Amino acid sequence: MMDGVRNLDREFDGITEQWSPRVIAAANGQYVKLAKVQGEFVWHDHADEDEVFIVFRGRLVLRFRDRADVTLGPGDVYVVPKGVEHCPVAEDECWLMLLEPAETKHTGDVETPFTRSVEEQLSGGGPRPVTAVRGGTGGVFGSGN
Amino acid sequence: MMDGVRNLDREFDGITEQWSPRVIAAANGQYVKLAKVQGEFVWHDHADEDEVFIVFRGRLVLRFRDRADVTLGPGDVYVVPKGVEHCPVAEDECWLMLLEPAETKHTGDVETPFTRSVEEQLSGGGPRPVTAVRGGTGGVFGSGN
Repeated sequence: MMDGVRNLDREFDGITEQWSPRVIAAANGQYVKLAKVQGEFVWHDHADEDEVFIVFRGRLVLRFRDRADVTLGPGDVYVVPKGVEHCPVAEDECWLMLLEPAETKHTGDVETPFTRSVEEQLSGGGPRPVTAVRGGTGGVFGSGN
Repeated sequence: MMDGVRNLDREFDGITEQWSPRVIAAANGQYVKLAKVQGEFVWHDHADEDEVFIVFRGRLVLRFRDRADVTLGPGDVYVVPKGVEHCPVAEDECWLMLLEPAETKHTGDVETPFTRSVEEQLSGGGPRPVTAVRGGTGGVFGSGN
């Protein structure tokens, strides 16, 4: 593996726990995360942060309180705007990419058994140390701010 | 197509011009862009913005002044930190996703025949009007700020 290069296939292969996002890149204060999900998550919103969903495998349903459900298949891209309450549901295992600010809590302000700290999401991130996130030396972790 | 959902395959299919990024989603002041590239781009940097490259098809070489080249294949993810001069090169056509702040100029401060304005990058973006970028109504365009 070339230094600093992360590969989506390899990263997905390394994810063994569902609903536990793995940070694979940081840039401009945003994180690129990968996750495998199945079943129903929790209702939550992010008051100040939009959240981009990109499905790589399987199917994800985003339920909303105030609008029709949205169903995403492979290659589909959707942005849940800040402040919009949503609940992700996947009947079968779904592999997805999330783009969101580094400070976004993946369960919003709802503390649940699903909740993973940012440290946990980073430590699942493979061979690069957490300190590299703000190292600014190139590779999948940019300056991070 | 479900309202607000964009699909990577369809978007790539719709891109007919090389080196002309298409904005497919906006969130948190960042753009998700797709591009097809071939040949050698221009040397440039982005003083204040990291740039995330994700290759979907083909191979992209990132040349640097101050470090070894990086070669990216399908599924590879790499962040060029802000301020680092680079020159993307693709021997054969390469399909890639870029993640960067909305204000990033894709050729940095270098004005070249390749240079496309943000308006051009948005207008190539398919059925949603440019005004939707900051509409905050959901879909691939979040609140955009």
